[in-house]
Amino acid sequence: MNKLQRTPERYTTEEYQDRLDKIRLRMEREGFDVLILSDPSNMSWVSGYGGWSFYVHQCVVIGPDGPPLWFGRSQDANGAYRTVWMSFDNVIGYPDHYVQSTERHPMEYLCARLTDRGWNKGTIGVEMDNYWYSARAHERLQNGMPDAKFADSTGFINWQRAVKSEKELDYMRQAARIVERMHHRIADKVEVGVRKCDLVAEIYDAGLRYDEWYGHGGDYPAIVPLLPSGPDAAAPHLTWDDLPMKPDEGTFFEIAGCYQRYHVPLSRTIYLGKPPQVFIDAEEAVLEGMEAGLEAARPGNTCEDIAKAFFRVLERHGIEKDNRAGYSIGLSYPPDWGERTMSIRRGDTTELRPGMTFHFMTGLWMDTWGYETTESIAITEGEPEVFCDIPRKMLVKD
Amino acid sequence: MNKLQRTPERYTTEEYQDRLDKIRLRMEREGFDVLILSDPSNMSWVSGYGGWSFYVHQCVVIGPDGPPLWFGRSQDANGAYRTVWMSFDNVIGYPDHYVQSTERHPMEYLCARLTDRGWNKGTIGVEMDNYWYSARAHERLQNGMPDAKFADSTGFINWQRAVKSEKELDYMRQAARIVERMHHRIADKVEVGVRKCDLVAEIYDAGLRYDEWYGHGGDYPAIVPLLPSGPDAAAPHLTWDDLPMKPDEGTFFEIAGCYQRYHVPLSRTIYLGKPPQVFIDAEEAVLEGMEAGLEAARPGNTCEDIAKAFFRVLERHGIEKDNRAGYSIGLSYPPDWGERTMSIRRGDTTELRPGMTFHFMTGLWMDTWGYETTESIAITEGEPEVFCDIPRKMLVKD
Repeated sequence: MNKLQRTPERYTTEEYQDRLDKIRLRMEREGFDVLILSDPSNMSWVSGYGGWSFYVHQCVVIGPDGPPLWFGRSQDANGAYRTVWMSFDNVIGYPDHYVQSTERHPMEYLCARLTDRGWNKGTIGVEMDNYWYSARAHERLQNGMPDAKFADSTGFINWQRAVKSEKELDYMRQAARIVERMHHRIADKVEVGVRKCDLVAEIYDAGLRYDEWYGHGGDYPAIVPLLPSGPDAAAPHLTWDDLPMKPDEGTFFEIAGCYQRYHVPLSRTIYLGKPPQVFIDAEEAVLEGMEAGLEAARPGNTCEDIAKAFFRVLERHGIEKDNRAGYSIGLSYPPDWGERTMSIRRGDTTELRPGMTFHFMTGLWMDTWGYETTESIAITEGEPEVFCDIPRKMLVKD
Repeated sequence: MNKLQRTPERYTTEEYQDRLDKIRLRMEREGFDVLILSDPSNMSWVSGYGGWSFYVHQCVVIGPDGPPLWFGRSQDANGAYRTVWMSFDNVIGYPDHYVQSTERHPMEYLCARLTDRGWNKGTIGVEMDNYWYSARAHERLQNGMPDAKFADSTGFINWQRAVKSEKELDYMRQAARIVERMHHRIADKVEVGVRKCDLVAEIYDAGLRYDEWYGHGGDYPAIVPLLPSGPDAAAPHLTWDDLPMKPDEGTFFEIAGCYQRYHVPLSRTIYLGKPPQVFIDAEEAVLEGMEAGLEAARPGNTCEDIAKAFFRVLERHGIEKDNRAGYSIGLSYPPDWGERTMSIRRGDTTELRPGMTFHFMTGLWMDTWGYETTESIAITEGEPEVFCDIPRKMLVKD
């Protein structure tokens, strides 16, 4: 740990070094000489840096040897000094006149630094389909390092992160305690007339405050709370307004606890009034399907086995869900708490292994209403570990 | 307003139509036949859609005629139906098996739909350097529409948004009331021993809750609260932890109020103890520099005139700040509340016009400490409108 570094650290230097060794082995196997990581979760997992600076160009570079290189805006290099495990000569800040300039691009600066190191040759992996790797960044890198061959490494590090260590699982268990507390708070506070914005304030409060029992406070989830009601719940990603909760509407609460940037998402539905039969029927199907899916969530099975078990029950109940039933989760930054590797859907034949973690997202978004009850799980040697302990049934407040 | 649409609307159909007309005029002048907008703030300003779905590929397309086209994941099309001003046949959802697939890409689906309309020819503007326009998306569009010429339209719509309407300024005034309330709450609650995570809970609470006086609740700001203390304040973008506030440290609070997605950022510094002389000297320079900058913030002057006036004072006090002193603000989505057009720095010769709005970001991030006091302003015919009314001097709690 360097002298400027903050405590506590998320991982030890040994863990970072071990990750790096495994990454290098795989780079060799896949023919990458250099990897440029633009995804903040990959940057963080490899280097330790996690500031809110992904709105300017930045990356972590893994070269053919030595520790990774942190590259970002010079004012953020201070944040890198305080959080990365590498020594300071592996931190490069670019001058501020590169920021949002129409004349200069930060990737030009990066090309020069990589060329200094002789890392401008061979095959360079770039995360072609990551949010934080723009079309322009790619163009400038290609122009600035004409001797290199560029290849797509989207998901390369994400896949390395798929199986969680015991420490990572512990961070997720902490996040589970946080999201449980958030749902308890919602259940306490929600009623007709309570304004959406005030419920969101309660959700943040429960998700952030220091908990004396567990000895932790919360971090910001990668997605803001989603709590659409009535017909808005047909649309899974509209955010809140400041209007009061109405009677005779269902609302789903899609939220996550976040600890050390590890997420445990959990959704529940609350109905203010007497739920119509369509809700009750949908719930019966989803709960039964969820049990079937959990039963299939065993090592040796595949992602699609979970999906098939779930969808089979739904179809028997005459419900069509035309979107995936979950995705891998873990360390994340906005805009998504998903890990963007495995999906619980037909066609995803990834074999399940102990330590993999998923949000089993069994939400239904119909024409004029929505219903969500979900679980976050870890694959173990036996039956899956269900992170949270909150009743799955919709809460009815009449 | 269509029958599924939510109330209240952010803008009227007339405003949308007026914007579209102006955009088309400018497209013609700059030689664009089609514009593809990936930036959620541009999508929202043009179409009305603003769900948290930018973690999958989506865009708004402005073709040679007719209303804009909303394109996104099919499960988000429900959200588009409920929020856009266009009729439903201008909303296109792509099937879910395009999401995070290694075989299919949503841009392939888009190419087919644009080709249906004959919009696959001429010059297509794409936001090459936007977060939400990945290198892969660009490649797939180019492959899928070989008859088109692609040109960079980064910032095209952002520049259209630079001068705010009276309604937009009113939204920002509401956001100003919110951020004032947030700073009052911080001042009330901060003291030695209070945990960072609990302060963040207070900040969210003050920023979100419904205010009976003003008749509004808050929305989520595009950046989470930043409140680094002591040496962490040297790094502007590290986020909070769950440790207690310590004596004899300065903390800056960089936060924004958000209303109808319009942001008013405001930073203040609080010192718990007796501030060292270096803080007091820095503050004197910044406050004087800020006055000089505000004096220069007049129509007919340029962005760099504000910067020069500010930096001149700083240099006279022997302080070097090597980063920009602000940027344009307005409607925004994560990861940035800046508008990414104008910067308050030397070399930006954009002429100031009434209705332009800026975060005058006069923060200092030194080797082992940081200090921020900032203002959000609107250019008027006379002296600038300073949105907030919070004393600029550092708050000392001894």
